[in-house]
This record gives sequence, structure tokens and C-alpha cells, in this order.
Amino acid sequence: MTSKYAELNPPARLLLGPGPSMVHPLVLRALSTPLVGHLDPQFIVLMNEVQDLLRMVFEAPDALAIPVSGTGSAAMEASLCNFIEEADPVLVCVNGYFSERIIDMATRYRADVHRIDVPWGEVFSPKQVDEALKAKPAKIVAIVQAETSTGALQPLAEIAEVVHRHGALFLVDAVTSLGGIPVRMQETGIDICYSCSQKCLSAPPGLGPLAMGQRAVEVLKNRESKVASWYLDMTLVLKYWGPERTYHHTAPISMNFALREALRLVQEEGLPARFERHRRNAEMLWEGLAELDLKPHVPLGHRLPTLTTVTVPEGVDELGVRKALLDAYGIEIAGGLGAFKGKIWRIGLMGYSSRPENVVTLLGAMERILR
Amino acid sequence: MTSKYAELNPPARLLLGPGPSMVHPLVLRALSTPLVGHLDPQFIVLMNEVQDLLRMVFEAPDALAIPVSGTGSAAMEASLCNFIEEADPVLVCVNGYFSERIIDMATRYRADVHRIDVPWGEVFSPKQVDEALKAKPAKIVAIVQAETSTGALQPLAEIAEVVHRHGALFLVDAVTSLGGIPVRMQETGIDICYSCSQKCLSAPPGLGPLAMGQRAVEVLKNRESKVASWYLDMTLVLKYWGPERTYHHTAPISMNFALREALRLVQEEGLPARFERHRRNAEMLWEGLAELDLKPHVPLGHRLPTLTTVTVPEGVDELGVRKALLDAYGIEIAGGLGAFKGKIWRIGLMGYSSRPENVVTLLGAMERILR
Repeated sequence: MTSKYAELNPPARLLLGPGPSMVHPLVLRALSTPLVGHLDPQFIVLMNEVQDLLRMVFEAPDALAIPVSGTGSAAMEASLCNFIEEADPVLVCVNGYFSERIIDMATRYRADVHRIDVPWGEVFSPKQVDEALKAKPAKIVAIVQAETSTGALQPLAEIAEVVHRHGALFLVDAVTSLGGIPVRMQETGIDICYSCSQKCLSAPPGLGPLAMGQRAVEVLKNRESKVASWYLDMTLVLKYWGPERTYHHTAPISMNFALREALRLVQEEGLPARFERHRRNAEMLWEGLAELDLKPHVPLGHRLPTLTTVTVPEGVDELGVRKALLDAYGIEIAGGLGAFKGKIWRIGLMGYSSRPENVVTLLGAMERILR
Repeated sequence: MTSKYAELNPPARLLLGPGPSMVHPLVLRALSTPLVGHLDPQFIVLMNEVQDLLRMVFEAPDALAIPVSGTGSAAMEASLCNFIEEADPVLVCVNGYFSERIIDMATRYRADVHRIDVPWGEVFSPKQVDEALKAKPAKIVAIVQAETSTGALQPLAEIAEVVHRHGALFLVDAVTSLGGIPVRMQETGIDICYSCSQKCLSAPPGLGPLAMGQRAVEVLKNRESKVASWYLDMTLVLKYWGPERTYHHTAPISMNFALREALRLVQEEGLPARFERHRRNAEMLWEGLAELDLKPHVPLGHRLPTLTTVTVPEGVDELGVRKALLDAYGIEIAGGLGAFKGKIWRIGLMGYSSRPENVVTLLGAMERILR
């Protein structure tokens, strides 16, 4: 017999969108390593190494940290369903697409969801959170550190203090920040934090790093009801990743090979050097955009270095530019989501994609397309 | 800086347990292909190809088939939570570890769960299902075709008739069968069927093939309540995999590269030849086991060719034999789960692991360890 399909041969792409970012050649090599069983003594060693490396990148030495066996959205859902019981009050700070997603999920888990809003692209002040919690206490306060839909960077430390003063758990989405800008989970006072594998960590998508501080673990341990999802139930998953090694599901072995290598490369570079590289290449991009008369959507004060949103100039065909970048140069950037559709471009310089040669390639291609 | 960890270098293993099976070299190569974005036109072509190939392997040309972005357990949960609404009656046929898991999940989704039982290792007759449905109608009847914990093969066609006569949906776990023994979803009359990537399909773990026939899709479309899980909500996921291409989560790109290649190899071999290969190598194993005075736990009449359970002889150290196989020969087989712990070995000959050279390697090593 023959298959109707040819062998896989996708086109070469320079990935400068909101993720996936380029995957380091060493990570691709780790990915293609022949497998060992998921209960093999050597895989158990690897599971411990991955957990240790996750605590390193979250900067949370006391946390329980594991890669959820799904994408960042699965980790988002796990960070909610494990701590929510029916009718629990949850406050969500909404300033973009992904905080709306948090509300959708929390509602499905029957939380009593309240929200505060600022316009997309803006960030919250500690005072706003304080007032919301004075008006109605919450068990969990959820916020997005790096909004992938807007490019805004939310300061966290003072809000963490407010949240804890009110006795709530502080839940932070670090999907577009972990490994690219400081998250500093423990120092900041984050209780629950999740991310993805395919942005600033530069592994392929398919795992969702999740870290839970001691306060969060206590809440998990003292639940009255079972977690509503079996697959994402951390009371079971942590027994599989912990010393008990109780079988739960089969871990995605190859993806864990890749994540270990990606995190090892983070450790090798060192977090401060890595953050500095992301900042330096972002500034190079911003200078180049200014020369092309293109304006970042978010003011410098709370602009993400990992993902830059650019206002599409009057009269320019948003989709046409992206299509030209992809077709003529093999470069991927993204358009806007939701309210920002057609109005912005989103340019990611994350992980292995954050390199000066990529910045000049993109700027050179954009100059030729726009002139 | 340097990392405290060395580059990944796991030991060579011959994987003959209940999964993962050996991954074909072409699949490993596909896995390490540099990525394209998950919304790239070329990835969308690939998503269509994967869906087409899944319909091929499920033998369900009219079904909606997608790989759930998680392991087989995530697909199991998706096959339940998308069709269960609160208090819906669900009948589960229990004869092993994984049907108990179905009950756990269905209960979390607030189904009104009923069960019928036969001893582990045995299978159900159509009459038993008929009587259970006469006593109490159900919206869904769930059964495991190939019980990974017992090695029993459940005949399905007559039970499917019974289930449909009672107006219920027929949900089948094909985790240890899809690609290794006939599932024939459409001909058999299965409405909802799920599997995993790492057994008879011989891709790494991390995706859960899920197929839904037209009757099931109608039930999904006519739900009154939202699906309780956001990540597994097929009303959203199908819009991402369907012509709308509405962003939901980021598909695990590399794993989909691997699954496409694994399914392409299935198509190239042809399902009848593949089933015959699994049968032939299993028979070779059974003959060799008999020569070693080792007895399969399940009678020939309903014994799985993909996974053989072997009764541990009186006085033999179950764990010691497995440890010797792994340490001296690099061969992985598994012990029993739950009620069968310490009592059986589980030997898988699935996908790329189902090869005569692997059978003789295992038999030769076992002979030397046991004599």
C-alpha cells in the first residue's frame, strides 16, 4: 500500500508572532530522542529534574511545580479548577483577551466571579484591586502579567500585598513572561502561577508549567469537594510527580525531554542575562519601528519586551502586510485578537527568537513591504 | 553560567510494556522538524490531513475526528464531559482498571452513573447490557474494547445493536486497540471513540485521538448547558479544527507532526496487513511463552493480540524479573495494575514494537532470567 500523503516537509519559518517561538536546535534534538517508559527509573530522574528546573525559572524554591500535560490553556484551567469550589468568590482583573478566558473557565467551575476592568492595553493599580476587595472579598484574585493580546506588562508586587492583606490567593498568568521577563514568584508573593512551553521557554507547545506556593497547596489539600476535572486534578497529578509515583496518566515523554532541555538552556544562560537579552532586542526593535514611523500601541512605561503590539497605520492593509511577510520572507507575525482585530500587529521576540539578526530581518522585510 | 544538568542521554530501551511502544524512526524525525505557527496556512493543511488520517484509522468516514491536545486520559475525559449534562444516566461496563476511571470521571461531571460488573479479565455479553438497560435506561453506555489492565478483548458489534435499540450513545475506549486490532467505528456502530498516540499508533504520548459519529455530534450540538471543561469543550475545539479556524488553544505542533507521520505509516502499511502483523507476532509470543511454561491470563477466545497478560508462576518474584529484564537487557514490560498488582506481567506488542525480533529478544531474556 501507499499513503496518499507525502513525508512531512513544512516550509521554513521565522517565528516572530506571539508563539510558538523558534525552538533551539538542541531542544529539537532532545525531542527526537528515542523514548524510555514513563515509569522507567530514568524517566523518574528526569521528572525530578524538570520540577527542579521549573522552580528555578519560576524563582519559587518552595513551590510545587510541574508541567501540566496539555498546553498553557490547560495549565490556566488547572490553576483555576484546583482551587475553586462551588460558589467561591473569584475576582478577575480584565484588560485583555486572556482575562476574559479566565472568567469563562472560572464560571464553568461554578465560581462566583466578579470582575474589574480597565481598557485593553492598560494595567491595574493596587488601589483598584484594594477597592474591589473591600467591596467584595475574594478567595482568589486572578491577573495576567503579560497580556498576549495587548502587549501590556502588569506590575505585580504591590497588588500581591493588597491581595494577601485581604486573605486571598494571588493567581498570575505568566504565559508570555516566564523565562523572558522577571516573574519572581516567591519574592513577588504569587500563590499560583502558570505558563506555556512555546513562548519565552522556546520548547514546542504541548506542556503548561504550573507552580503552586505553600498557601495554595494548603488550600488544595483542604478542599471539601473533588476537583471537577479528573485530568487536571492536582491532588492526583502531584502523587504521580511526587515521591509516591502513583500512576495517573502517561506523561508526554518526548515533550518532557524537550522541556528539560529548554529549561537547561535557560539555566545555562542565567535568568538575569536572559531578561537583559529580551530587553535589549526589544529596544532594538522599538528603535527600528520608530524609523519606519510605526508606533507601539503600549506606552514605554508598561510595554512588554517579549511581545510588542504595533498600531497599524491609517490606510495600511493589516492582513496584506502579514501575508507578504509570510509569503515573500517566511516571517510570521500576528494580527490582533478580539477588539484589536485588524488594528494591531503583534511581534514576539521570545526565547530563541529574541536575536538581533531576527530583528534586522523583520525590519528589513517590513521596510520593503511598507515603502 | 552553566546548568547543573548534563545534556539528555537516556538509556536505550526496548519498550514491550502497555505503552509507550517503540516510536518509528520516521516519526522521531517528524517530531524534530522545525516548527511552523499553529495558524500557519501549512499547519492548517496538516490539521486537515491529520483529521483525514484519523477517520481512516477509526474506519469512520462520516465522523468528526481530532487529536485532543492531551494524553489518552484527556480524550477519555473529553468523550464523557462533552456528552454528559447534569444527572444524565450513564451505564458503565466494568471489567478492569480503566472502566473504573470512566466512572470516576463521569461522576465528577455529575452524571447519574450505573455500573454492571464482570470479573477482571472477562468480557460482557450483549444480554447483560440489554438487561441493565431494561432495568434503567441510559443516555450513554461506556465500555472498554481492549482493557490495558487485564488483556481482555471485548466484542462490540452485538452490544452496539443493543445500545442503539435502547436509544443510547455507544462510547468505546480503544486506547489499546486503535491501529492494532479492528475498531471499525462506523460498521460496528460506535458513536464516541477515543484512543491514545503511544500504543498501536507508535507516536509519543501526548495526543488523544477522539472520533464522534453523527449521532454524537447531534447530542453535542443540542446541549443545554456549557461543557463543564473549557479546555476539552468540543463545541469550541471543533471550531478551531473545522473550517472556522477560530483560535481556541495552541495545538501541540510537534506532536501533530509526529502523529501525522505515524498515521501516514499506518496508511502505508494498510490496516488489514497491520492487524495481521499484530496477530502473527502475538501468536509467536504465545507459543514462546508456552515453551517457558508461562500461561496467558486471558483465554484465547477473548485474548488481546496487542497486550498479553501473563500469570506470574507460583514462587517467582514478579518485580525481580522485570527489574532483571530492564537492568540486564534494557527491556521494559509492566506489572499488574490495581487488583492484578504482583500477579501478572503485561507484555505489549504494539505498533512498531510488534516485530519478530522483539519477540525473540524478550523470550530469550526471559528464559535466561527464569531458568
